[in-house]
Amino acid sequence: MHSLQFTAESSSNGMVERDFTVGDIPGVLWSPASGTDRAPLVLMGHGGGQHKKHPAMAGRARLLTGCGFHVAVIDAPGHGDRPRTEHDEQDIAELRKAQAAGEPEGPIVVRYNARLAEVAVPEWQATLDALQELPEIGTDGPVGYVGIGLGTAIGLPLVAVEPRITAAVFGMHWPDALVEKAKQITVPVEFAMQWDNERIPREASLALFDAFASKEKTLHANAGKHFDMPRFEADSAARFFARHLGRTVTSPA
Amino acid sequence: MHSLQFTAESSSNGMVERDFTVGDIPGVLWSPASGTDRAPLVLMGHGGGQHKKHPAMAGRARLLTGCGFHVAVIDAPGHGDRPRTEHDEQDIAELRKAQAAGEPEGPIVVRYNARLAEVAVPEWQATLDALQELPEIGTDGPVGYVGIGLGTAIGLPLVAVEPRITAAVFGMHWPDALVEKAKQITVPVEFAMQWDNERIPREASLALFDAFASKEKTLHANAGKHFDMPRFEADSAARFFARHLGRTVTSPA
Repeated sequence: MHSLQFTAESSSNGMVERDFTVGDIPGVLWSPASGTDRAPLVLMGHGGGQHKKHPAMAGRARLLTGCGFHVAVIDAPGHGDRPRTEHDEQDIAELRKAQAAGEPEGPIVVRYNARLAEVAVPEWQATLDALQELPEIGTDGPVGYVGIGLGTAIGLPLVAVEPRITAAVFGMHWPDALVEKAKQITVPVEFAMQWDNERIPREASLALFDAFASKEKTLHANAGKHFDMPRFEADSAARFFARHLGRTVTSPA
Repeated sequence: MHSLQFTAESSSNGMVERDFTVGDIPGVLWSPASGTDRAPLVLMGHGGGQHKKHPAMAGRARLLTGCGFHVAVIDAPGHGDRPRTEHDEQDIAELRKAQAAGEPEGPIVVRYNARLAEVAVPEWQATLDALQELPEIGTDGPVGYVGIGLGTAIGLPLVAVEPRITAAVFGMHWPDALVEKAKQITVPVEFAMQWDNERIPREASLALFDAFASKEKTLHANAGKHFDMPRFEADSAARFFARHLGRTVTSPA
């Protein structure tokens, strides 16, 4: 088991940013600048082709640290600061080829992301082990997970096997490799989809939402195409965690 | 045209409550206690069998006045302080009979509510005329509408013909009499449904959401039966109006 090593630290506007590694996995931990009390932890999975410090991640981190949470992101396999394998390069080339030819990308993304998830789920579990050794997080505090797209392809199987995660926000992925895992999930879930998604069929998103065994689950469907997901869904996710991880909202409006 | 007559006034915890009449229509206007500046107005439609001061209305009013809005509710025809017609009594008796026999209530509710809407839409328009004569509301401020169940059966045809209403929250009704009206609506809409509704089929709710012509529309589907709609949807509606009617959220978290 690897412990967590901090490699850089900075802060701006009330948020502390610390780069870290757990073994050879690079990550970032964002925390509220005020206070060192124990606080809930939100794990955040980035989207396909993105990385741990993508603006969408930093933006969500600001909302979540504003709610008093710690927020951790790690680079997915072959993303950000991590090298791509030959297999990654093959999958990505196949994806680009399908996109250029106007052919369905779903089957390629489903297979590629499922392969990444097999590697990433144990990485997230090792990272969570290491994060919980930090005194400001600890082993007894609540943990949430939020991730859209690739963040759902990895996070959904993670939440299915990881009892420490007690609330999750997912969305925007094909159900094929995920439906059976969703049936194992019973914690509160918020699930986002785009109503006019040109990549993921509407019925496919509805079917994945339907599969969660959670007693408390909410679907948010917004008009618009795949990349039109409105920013207020990030606010909504922060409120979801404020309800379920036990901190009150202080500033994200 | 009738002007608005105030008949009673009280206040508690930062919210002023004024009963009013417009002709023979009884209503209530809730306002923030602080300040007499012009503020946006939210019209609110109560549910079937309820009335203008039902706890669900007062609870939403507190969230909305907390956002700086005025909130007005009137009793629907045959509801609250208003007499029932013989036709109302017949429809209600038929509904109770179907419910007792375990027969589908949808067709009865659809017909009954559509009849109430024909009466109520011009009543709402006259009420809005009168409310806009008040100096604290005025004719140039933004206006929203929120109503679930009967509040959607009345409000949806109202918003379809009333250009002064620029944002609306609906939900929880059969689409039969409403789909054609929804196709005429282009303002931002938030639409709530219950995923496991035992009264309104899932596909019927999805079809009604799909019918809105609005470029900005959001579906919120929550796990649970008809009467299980979670309270956080009232918070979400307040935030929706804060985004679209131009006031910032101050306290509803």
